[in-house]
Amino acid sequence: MSIKVGIVGATGYTGAELVRILSRHPEVELVSLITQNYADIPFWEVYPHLYKYNQMICEKLELTALLDASDVIFVALPHGHAMPIALDALRQGKKLIDLGADFRLNDYSVYEQWYKVEHTTRELLSKAVYGLPELNRKEIKGARLVANPGCYPTSVLLALAPLLNRKLIDPGSIIIDSKSGVSGAGRGLSLGTHFCEVNENFKAYNVGVHRHTPEIEQELSKLAGETVTVSFTPHLLPLTRGILSTIYAKLSKPVEQGEVLEYYQEYYLEEKFVRVLPGGLLPQTKWTAGTNHCDLGVALDSRTGRVIVVSAIDNMVKGASGQAVQNMNLICGLPEDTALNGPGLYP
Amino acid sequence: MSIKVGIVGATGYTGAELVRILSRHPEVELVSLITQNYADIPFWEVYPHLYKYNQMICEKLELTALLDASDVIFVALPHGHAMPIALDALRQGKKLIDLGADFRLNDYSVYEQWYKVEHTTRELLSKAVYGLPELNRKEIKGARLVANPGCYPTSVLLALAPLLNRKLIDPGSIIIDSKSGVSGAGRGLSLGTHFCEVNENFKAYNVGVHRHTPEIEQELSKLAGETVTVSFTPHLLPLTRGILSTIYAKLSKPVEQGEVLEYYQEYYLEEKFVRVLPGGLLPQTKWTAGTNHCDLGVALDSRTGRVIVVSAIDNMVKGASGQAVQNMNLICGLPEDTALNGPGLYP
Amino acid sequence: MSIKVGIVGATGYTGAELVRILSRHPEVELVSLITQNYADIPFWEVYPHLYKYNQMICEKLELTALLDASDVIFVALPHGHAMPIALDALRQGKKLIDLGADFRLNDYSVYEQWYKVEHTTRELLSKAVYGLPELNRKEIKGARLVANPGCYPTSVLLALAPLLNRKLIDPGSIIIDSKSGVSGAGRGLSLGTHFCEVNENFKAYNVGVHRHTPEIEQELSKLAGETVTVSFTPHLLPLTRGILSTIYAKLSKPVEQGEVLEYYQEYYLEEKFVRVLPGGLLPQTKWTAGTNHCDLGVALDSRTGRVIVVSAIDNMVKGASGQAVQNMNLICGLPEDTALNGPGLYP
Amino acid sequence: MSIKVGIVGATGYTGAELVRILSRHPEVELVSLITQNYADIPFWEVYPHLYKYNQMICEKLELTALLDASDVIFVALPHGHAMPIALDALRQGKKLIDLGADFRLNDYSVYEQWYKVEHTTRELLSKAVYGLPELNRKEIKGARLVANPGCYPTSVLLALAPLLNRKLIDPGSIIIDSKSGVSGAGRGLSLGTHFCEVNENFKAYNVGVHRHTPEIEQELSKLAGETVTVSFTPHLLPLTRGILSTIYAKLSKPVEQGEVLEYYQEYYLEEKFVRVLPGGLLPQTKWTAGTNHCDLGVALDSRTGRVIVVSAIDNMVKGASGQAVQNMNLICGLPEDTALNGPGLYP
Repeated sequence: MSIKVGIVGATGYTGAELVRILSRHPEVELVSLITQNYADIPFWEVYPHLYKYNQMICEKLELTALLDASDVIFVALPHGHAMPIALDALRQGKKLIDLGADFRLNDYSVYEQWYKVEHTTRELLSKAVYGLPELNRKEIKGARLVANPGCYPTSVLLALAPLLNRKLIDPGSIIIDSKSGVSGAGRGLSLGTHFCEVNENFKAYNVGVHRHTPEIEQELSKLAGETVTVSFTPHLLPLTRGILSTIYAKLSKPVEQGEVLEYYQEYYLEEKFVRVLPGGLLPQTKWTAGTNHCDLGVALDSRTGRVIVVSAIDNMVKGASGQAVQNMNLICGLPEDTALNGPGLYP
Repeated sequence: MSIKVGIVGATGYTGAELVRILSRHPEVELVSLITQNYADIPFWEVYPHLYKYNQMICEKLELTALLDASDVIFVALPHGHAMPIALDALRQGKKLIDLGADFRLNDYSVYEQWYKVEHTTRELLSKAVYGLPELNRKEIKGARLVANPGCYPTSVLLALAPLLNRKLIDPGSIIIDSKSGVSGAGRGLSLGTHFCEVNENFKAYNVGVHRHTPEIEQELSKLAGETVTVSFTPHLLPLTRGILSTIYAKLSKPVEQGEVLEYYQEYYLEEKFVRVLPGGLLPQTKWTAGTNHCDLGVALDSRTGRVIVVSAIDNMVKGASGQAVQNMNLICGLPEDTALNGPGLYP
Repeated sequence: MSIKVGIVGATGYTGAELVRILSRHPEVELVSLITQNYADIPFWEVYPHLYKYNQMICEKLELTALLDASDVIFVALPHGHAMPIALDALRQGKKLIDLGADFRLNDYSVYEQWYKVEHTTRELLSKAVYGLPELNRKEIKGARLVANPGCYPTSVLLALAPLLNRKLIDPGSIIIDSKSGVSGAGRGLSLGTHFCEVNENFKAYNVGVHRHTPEIEQELSKLAGETVTVSFTPHLLPLTRGILSTIYAKLSKPVEQGEVLEYYQEYYLEEKFVRVLPGGLLPQTKWTAGTNHCDLGVALDSRTGRVIVVSAIDNMVKGASGQAVQNMNLICGLPEDTALNGPGLYP
Repeated sequence: MSIKVGIVGATGYTGAELVRILSRHPEVELVSLITQNYADIPFWEVYPHLYKYNQMICEKLELTALLDASDVIFVALPHGHAMPIALDALRQGKKLIDLGADFRLNDYSVYEQWYKVEHTTRELLSKAVYGLPELNRKEIKGARLVANPGCYPTSVLLALAPLLNRKLIDPGSIIIDSKSGVSGAGRGLSLGTHFCEVNENFKAYNVGVHRHTPEIEQELSKLAGETVTVSFTPHLLPLTRGILSTIYAKLSKPVEQGEVLEYYQEYYLEEKFVRVLPGGLLPQTKWTAGTNHCDLGVALDSRTGRVIVVSAIDNMVKGASGQAVQNMNLICGLPEDTALNGPGLYP
């Protein structure tokens, strides 16, 4: 049995990462690589590192043909593009995983407020499942429409879930300082991704207004059982892959570092892709490069009564395409780590 | 009139940066470059970028000869080494600027607790002035012993002074998330500065226990007029020069972003080395590379009632050797920006 | 059937890369990780990216125990250290693959001249096979002692073999300009691998005297059927993984670019790890990152009558540990690409 | 007396570098910053590192107004754009320095063949002087139209001049392997300058067809007194500033390394911007960062009878804007190093 997979937006970075991961997947047959700019060109010409590995020709989007040929469709496009595709896909009984933001926010008005476009398929929102398997596995297994989480939210939600679950922190005190590599901005051209502007440089951006904020708050609120508002500040690192989030919160009762670490280890005991690091060891982005891991470290600051959680992921894998394949494995009844296991590259 | 200057620890990065800056200084004559490891070797062999610019030979420390030859001594060594030199220097009526930590903390017991060594010259602490000119200019002008601030504290104190001065924030709510380039770790060898371990990598380190914490708290407490405790988390950036600090605090009363920016511009109106960026523009480390600037940006997050201040410096210049020369200019009665003006290198 | 493998020098970069690759190998059981500096420490503490993947404890070298436990021994140490181990290994009927230089040069006096140490196991030189499978597969299959090629020689020999095989170039005209990432220098500490000295910097080093020169000349001479002397200049790139060699030679007779490319494609037709790129496309190091590929591109310069060959490898994989596993697969009768297939990581 | 200077193409990287250098120039008044894309915007908004240093507003090109206001015009634009400006400038008795290629090649047909555009001001070619001061100072002093050399040619010509001057090498044997940082490609957007495509990557490009080839050959031919044809291969380094050229040639007679070094030192004895490094020391790009130096190192390879010259420059300074200011100083009768002296930034 092989699953026929089509990728819309295959020539962006997350699309190419899907191709890389799925080329190792024993149960998947790639049937369609859809792109706007490279139609009729061999995929390896767009990504020569895949020369001799992928013989497919890029195609323009022909929705009917795509849906006929595919069992599962990945949409790896900016927000706004997945809505019409999802509508038809679900009508035809196909499964769709959206790596964009169209189905992440439960409330369409929040989507419209932050993303400044109309939500044209509101009726699908109730069918969409937020695809963070470690928090939402059961719902994902039965889903036909998966909203793959944003890269920053993935790094934040996995870091805070155990604390909120145990009610160990004051939800109003959460401050999230995140740092991302450049690949998160995609392959599109902009001055902000020009080598000379990023290299040997570091900056904060979109302070207080980044679109991942409502997504983080929505999911944290579910975990906390109350409305959570956070300060979230993203920064741009002069490296290609990796997100590290440093998260601060006020402890709601006195605990010891050892206890907290134990909570974390217990909470993620069965999880293959979350590594709670031993006390004293804090995550580094490179330890996750090329893997579907989220690494977590916890430090208690008794002087200030705060807990500091540090989480690291590869934004292209656990932060995007790897998690999307993890979701595909779940909705197709396959072992969750198929094509996703194995250690990363270091150094 | 020329000032005779000796540098102890001349072959470390901050020492070499002193040599670079002072080589442009019209009133300075370098008389002695002291080093432990490169005695009798031409300085340009240790730093070939100075070939044809510096003909001096490195020397072992001979304290008497050094003090005889120098009017001002810079000590660019790890903590613990400046104490005996300062004692003799002051006895002989010389001026000394310490780029290390020996005279930054007013209370010797705090020093001993955080630095794990005995303070052997406690009697000098009352004579030492904390050398952050923008906050402490008057005292510096009359000083003979200047404790040059740490790199992180410089980026933090300049960022928070206007807010504390106006009592706009709750001092107990301050969270400091700082990121530094690798040169801050010096030229000494360690796995943590090996190219392959840093490149394409990012990490937090010394969470909750970094030695700049008491220095930050001491000076913030003076500004606030009350004891301030902060959360301070340093991170290591895969770049050579630059510190960016992202600082969070709860507003103590409702204000608008425009007002706060105006406070900042007013507070630093006369300062040549602090640039308060216009609204909407946030600092980037590369904009300060090679300069003695501290760039500041302010964002108000009305959703959470917090203010977020972002500050950027070149850790080698305003964070160390540039500020040391600024202090020297002050104690010698020279224009404060001598050898320190001019725009930086970009890209 | 599983092959029991011991690694001597497991905590260096090439050792850790062996652990990474072999952890995916279905026929290998790692039995011993030998190290000088980290004995009794869990391997994942030395390389935390392997946390949860590797539970082994590092050990000091106990030669008898190591040989008893292992079928194949990899030695990933600087030159000089493999000789005594190889002697005992071969006596006990074990197989050994040396990633260092001890058995690469057929003539011990050339070894002693370039490496400045005595060759203490000259009697083994006739048994050692130079482990470049694409040129030497048959001999490797029957070998018990494999000298794994140097990183630079691998990139050079695969690039020039087709030209020398067809006698298309003047062997006296070969000029090799190679550029390597920093991981080739290993994990040991030196000023030359300090981040701040390498980052944003580029240099040539060991011009005319690099120890890979005699190795390159020895193997080129075999290919040419005459003594070949080359100019070889290595450079240090500010990146972690990758070697790119740009090689110049005078054409010995008029040919067209298309013909030469065809020769290359034909020559490497059956090779899984050599990719001859189509005309107009030249290799980039990142296209090989994390893979066992050698990518080749060829350009004819009709104005000067020269051919320019560009080759790229990942110095840690095809340039070291990947090729070593390829050799192990050959001497153990396994499919040559076991644990070595799959595309690399990009970007 | 102050020279009124206008810059056409001020918002590109070489334009901004002119602004930076000229802002330190005591005899220059910047009167006009011309740009196509940022008209009416403050220059510091385009380059915020100059905030508080430059208050000028960018302007669209109005040729008459520009020429009326300026004594000297720098054109920092791609080839093809300087021709019409130069025509009018010279008619009005102004001086013009072109950082592009329009006036570098003496023979318009060679220009048209390599640059694929018509040369519309052939009559100016005889008036244009090739602006490499170390080789051409006398002619530059009397010139009104200076063709500022290309970055690669600067690094190559200074490296080879002493050898050709002494007829020490066979001109037909010259092979030039050059490596450049990304800033040489300018601030324009392209996939080739996207951070993720350059970072941790290295490649050759334009092999055998780079447009600097005829420029190099023209000037080498003048030095050699005969027609010289070279192999020239440029590569792209993952860094911002710096060019390093490794140049190979066959010695035409037996000489010793010491002799050759002496020739170099003698040849460049009076030059402030060429540093011939002592024997055993080879240039590194970072040693020239931010300076107008060209550093040279020479190695003789007696095994092959070749000489290997390594040269390093900052492509933005000696390779472009610094050399342009050096030329301006010459044509305006100022000390040649005005605004160009002082050591660079390291690390």
